[in-house]
Amino acid sequence: MENKVIKDRLSALREKMTANGIDYYLMPTSDYHNSEYSADFFKAREYFCGFTGSNGTLVVAKDWAGMWTDGRYFIQAEREMKGTGVTLYKMGEEGVPTISEYLLSNMESGQVLGFDGKVVPAAEGMSYEKKLKKKQVKIKYDKDLAMEVWTDRPKLPCNPIYVLSDELCGKSFEEKLADVRKFMDENEAGSYLLCKLDDICWLTNIRGNDVECNPVVLSYLFITKKSVKMFVQFDELTDESRKYFEEKGIELFEYSKIISWLDEYEYEGLTLYDERNVSYSVYRTISDNAKSRGANVKNILDPTEMMKACKNDTELSNIREVYRRDSAALTKFIYWVKKAVKTESLNEYTAAMHLDDMRRALPGFIELSFPTISAYKDNAAMMHYEATEESNAALTPEGFLLVDSGGTYMGGTTDVTRTIVLGPISDEEKKHYTLTAVGMLSLANGWFLEGCSGRNVDILARAPLWNIGIDYKCGTGHGIGYMLNVHEGPHSIRWKSRSVEDDAPLKKGMIVSDEPGVYIEGKYGIRIENILEVVEKVKNSDGQFLGFDQLTYVPLDLDAIDKQYLQAKDIKAINDYHAEVYKRIEPLIEEPEIKEWLKEATRAI
Amino acid sequence: MENKVIKDRLSALREKMTANGIDYYLMPTSDYHNSEYSADFFKAREYFCGFTGSNGTLVVAKDWAGMWTDGRYFIQAEREMKGTGVTLYKMGEEGVPTISEYLLSNMESGQVLGFDGKVVPAAEGMSYEKKLKKKQVKIKYDKDLAMEVWTDRPKLPCNPIYVLSDELCGKSFEEKLADVRKFMDENEAGSYLLCKLDDICWLTNIRGNDVECNPVVLSYLFITKKSVKMFVQFDELTDESRKYFEEKGIELFEYSKIISWLDEYEYEGLTLYDERNVSYSVYRTISDNAKSRGANVKNILDPTEMMKACKNDTELSNIREVYRRDSAALTKFIYWVKKAVKTESLNEYTAAMHLDDMRRALPGFIELSFPTISAYKDNAAMMHYEATEESNAALTPEGFLLVDSGGTYMGGTTDVTRTIVLGPISDEEKKHYTLTAVGMLSLANGWFLEGCSGRNVDILARAPLWNIGIDYKCGTGHGIGYMLNVHEGPHSIRWKSRSVEDDAPLKKGMIVSDEPGVYIEGKYGIRIENILEVVEKVKNSDGQFLGFDQLTYVPLDLDAIDKQYLQAKDIKAINDYHAEVYKRIEPLIEEPEIKEWLKEATRAI
Repeated sequence: MENKVIKDRLSALREKMTANGIDYYLMPTSDYHNSEYSADFFKAREYFCGFTGSNGTLVVAKDWAGMWTDGRYFIQAEREMKGTGVTLYKMGEEGVPTISEYLLSNMESGQVLGFDGKVVPAAEGMSYEKKLKKKQVKIKYDKDLAMEVWTDRPKLPCNPIYVLSDELCGKSFEEKLADVRKFMDENEAGSYLLCKLDDICWLTNIRGNDVECNPVVLSYLFITKKSVKMFVQFDELTDESRKYFEEKGIELFEYSKIISWLDEYEYEGLTLYDERNVSYSVYRTISDNAKSRGANVKNILDPTEMMKACKNDTELSNIREVYRRDSAALTKFIYWVKKAVKTESLNEYTAAMHLDDMRRALPGFIELSFPTISAYKDNAAMMHYEATEESNAALTPEGFLLVDSGGTYMGGTTDVTRTIVLGPISDEEKKHYTLTAVGMLSLANGWFLEGCSGRNVDILARAPLWNIGIDYKCGTGHGIGYMLNVHEGPHSIRWKSRSVEDDAPLKKGMIVSDEPGVYIEGKYGIRIENILEVVEKVKNSDGQFLGFDQLTYVPLDLDAIDKQYLQAKDIKAINDYHAEVYKRIEPLIEEPEIKEWLKEATRAI
Repeated sequence: MENKVIKDRLSALREKMTANGIDYYLMPTSDYHNSEYSADFFKAREYFCGFTGSNGTLVVAKDWAGMWTDGRYFIQAEREMKGTGVTLYKMGEEGVPTISEYLLSNMESGQVLGFDGKVVPAAEGMSYEKKLKKKQVKIKYDKDLAMEVWTDRPKLPCNPIYVLSDELCGKSFEEKLADVRKFMDENEAGSYLLCKLDDICWLTNIRGNDVECNPVVLSYLFITKKSVKMFVQFDELTDESRKYFEEKGIELFEYSKIISWLDEYEYEGLTLYDERNVSYSVYRTISDNAKSRGANVKNILDPTEMMKACKNDTELSNIREVYRRDSAALTKFIYWVKKAVKTESLNEYTAAMHLDDMRRALPGFIELSFPTISAYKDNAAMMHYEATEESNAALTPEGFLLVDSGGTYMGGTTDVTRTIVLGPISDEEKKHYTLTAVGMLSLANGWFLEGCSGRNVDILARAPLWNIGIDYKCGTGHGIGYMLNVHEGPHSIRWKSRSVEDDAPLKKGMIVSDEPGVYIEGKYGIRIENILEVVEKVKNSDGQFLGFDQLTYVPLDLDAIDKQYLQAKDIKAINDYHAEVYKRIEPLIEEPEIKEWLKEATRAI
């Protein structure tokens, strides 16, 4: 069956391409800042091919269109693009060309590749530029053709900016700015362009609501030795924030003017930027302009990333309290769902809604830190499963329910996963749950020397599973923001580095998740995720030892623990953890029957 | 007290410097191939300052001389250079300049830095070149001034070359050469200069005796698509080796002619070299000459390193048997020393000699793979301690004796460390021994996914010690050659990479040591070292799991095991290992009383 809607959209796009002298037009999945999540405004790729996944690039030519996505989405993309005439290119499969390879062998010399350079990350754009040079392909990056076809395009998100007090942030904007300027001095730089949204919010102590689940503000920051220029949508300014920016000496410019401003700015000396977070348009503008004035640009790792990652004492103390309350809410949810499943008609979605409501009732709740994952039985084996009101599985008193969820509150952003026993489970499920719990606690209780990165310690969480020939196909842990994004760098815990930043050392005050799991296709999925704070342990002539403190205090499910897979030290680790859970969470629970259940759920084994 | 001998030598050197227009003269610790050990011929630095350690660089100017060395040698260097007038620069200490920094702030514009470019690694020479450019310092690298002053300089080592059969090597020269030429093709190279001695021996299936404990031949190999040119000292050739080289079509050139030959060669296309193993002289010669002919050079990682590291089936089967016999010898030594210490007058040195003699009596013995380390009590806390006939500690029936030793045999090179209980030891010693054994076995028994490097798995060996705040200041493991060097790359097991090569993945057929330890200054040192072979374990949809097989079968000392520090899995690991030790070693032991002792020493606990 033909998908006429999409075909018509592609025809209209092709007309615009012809009118603009563009032979191939490329649409990636990104906003202006290479954010993890994109607002609806940025979903041009989805508009023109129907594919809704979180990763994909559409390329359109006169008589052909292709969409590249990764293994998570092959089935979904095939289904969603049926009848559109768009060819699916399965990234990573043998014999499937990359986009560059495809363009290189199909574009003719002198043809034009077009894209909106504002949504293509600098490194990606440069790579096309470099690879297609051989074929004298020209690149046209100043046209957002989607804008001309997509008449009912959603508006750019535009939500009020709010200001956090220095007391809540633990460090004022001025102090943070001084650190950034110190970095600029060390790099002998005259200016620094910061494009990463959570870094801008962290640095300026503001928050907003422009990216789903990320309380950030669409903005750019241009810092010189004497001035700070901020580009925001003026409609987002409140009286409070306008006054704050004025007090702090932050000069405001309209968000949409960034490119033209950068194009006219009189660069002197060296301008720093981070190519991971800068769009191709921004990169070309600053680099061409600077060079034309005899100035220079330099690619660096945003220094704000590491500064933001090492939480200060105020942040840490707020985070600990936020996690305690969030843990208590999840604990109550576990009590509820284990009981309700026996008597009520529940499904994955309604259970998630119940939990979300519990979080919303907590003091200081801002928003969910990501859409709650509630996955029953075999659904949990799909790492990116999302139940909806329309499509979900009914819960019955058997098997595992995996719930991965979190909230952003005044004082912290949480993330936690528990796999909950709803009724009878198999011996194999118990074995895998037990070894997952052992891995999670082994990492949490491990000591390591300062200088270690996540690569060094990842195996502590993975070993109990690797030793029986099971792996989970994702990292063990990610950094988490302070009232900010639930995923933040530079550190992570994974055995294979994707990039040099993955190898950032673990430092005191960092927050990191610890989430091993077992995913058996068609059967079940197990993940246990606690959030850890990096803390100092012993310091002696051998060096500074680091370790972790737990932030998450939610019972493991003893119904799924099989002692035959536990060493003495594992039993002690579980009992010690549960003793702490009871001690910290019990005071937050009023209902006597839940108190009683918690005592049983955290009993020593 | 003045050291007149050294002072006179320095005066003579300074005269030569003046005569050659050299203002600063630098002498590192290296041979022509950046080998780990240097022959006496190369000990110019020692000749001119008295310092005998294995790492140090002497720089001499008209009125000043300085010697740079690392933390292992501060005390020794100070003692040995007393009265010489040479200043010690403690590398890594705060406020101590590096050599480049020193030269940059002390050399005057236009002055000349001299060194023998044949003993300065390319990367080091290039770094001086680059850093001193700012000061218009000239570099003169074609003069070996030591040669002119050091009249009784030892000769360059010159020992007969012998040829290994294809049956012993498992792969012929032609097959290995084809692999190297494939690599050259992939790199679109016309020629490849190989300077690493063990790689040359591996590739050509020859051995020699030109570097202490390393059965290698001083040589260079220049490979083109059609020819193989080998530079050796003609005096090393035997009838057998001359015939072999002729048969294999390897053209021979006199070793000393390498530079002049490289200078005259008509380069075409691209020449590959590995800057880690090429001297500055060689690098400058090939790069200047190639450029002058419109050809090019490219720095690569010697492909032979990885090829050599992944042992073939023939090598592996020989290695396993060699380790079994070597293990039996060490086991007998342990029996002997534990008994003899009660009745005989022994010292560290005589004990080492006894062990060396036992190895010499084994079939196919060629030489020790390194000088045996025999360190008693607190001496063992010094990682580089070496007992001599003149200076050693007497052994008494108490405390630990650490013995780290190995041999090169026809069929393999061994390395093994045992820490032996000679009599009463403290509870702390038992605790540290037990946790060291746990770490060694945890790594040996760990599974990991293909793609992991030593960085990923290092913590398996270290965790039991890190968790009580103890570290050992060295890597956990190194690669080992086949009838070659006891240290070889590219892989290693260490938590901190020194370079990108340290991160080489562990691959099937690699041999690697597993040697955690505890070193308590002034008290004792513990190290337990087994050698492991990387083997394939389960392969499934999660990937190819790898693990290790033990090559070393020598009892751990149960007298030092304290069960309170063992988990159930650790007890099983010790018992399983000991059962294998007994099964494999007992048949190699004839003496009934040793058999009986072995049974007891490997009893289940």
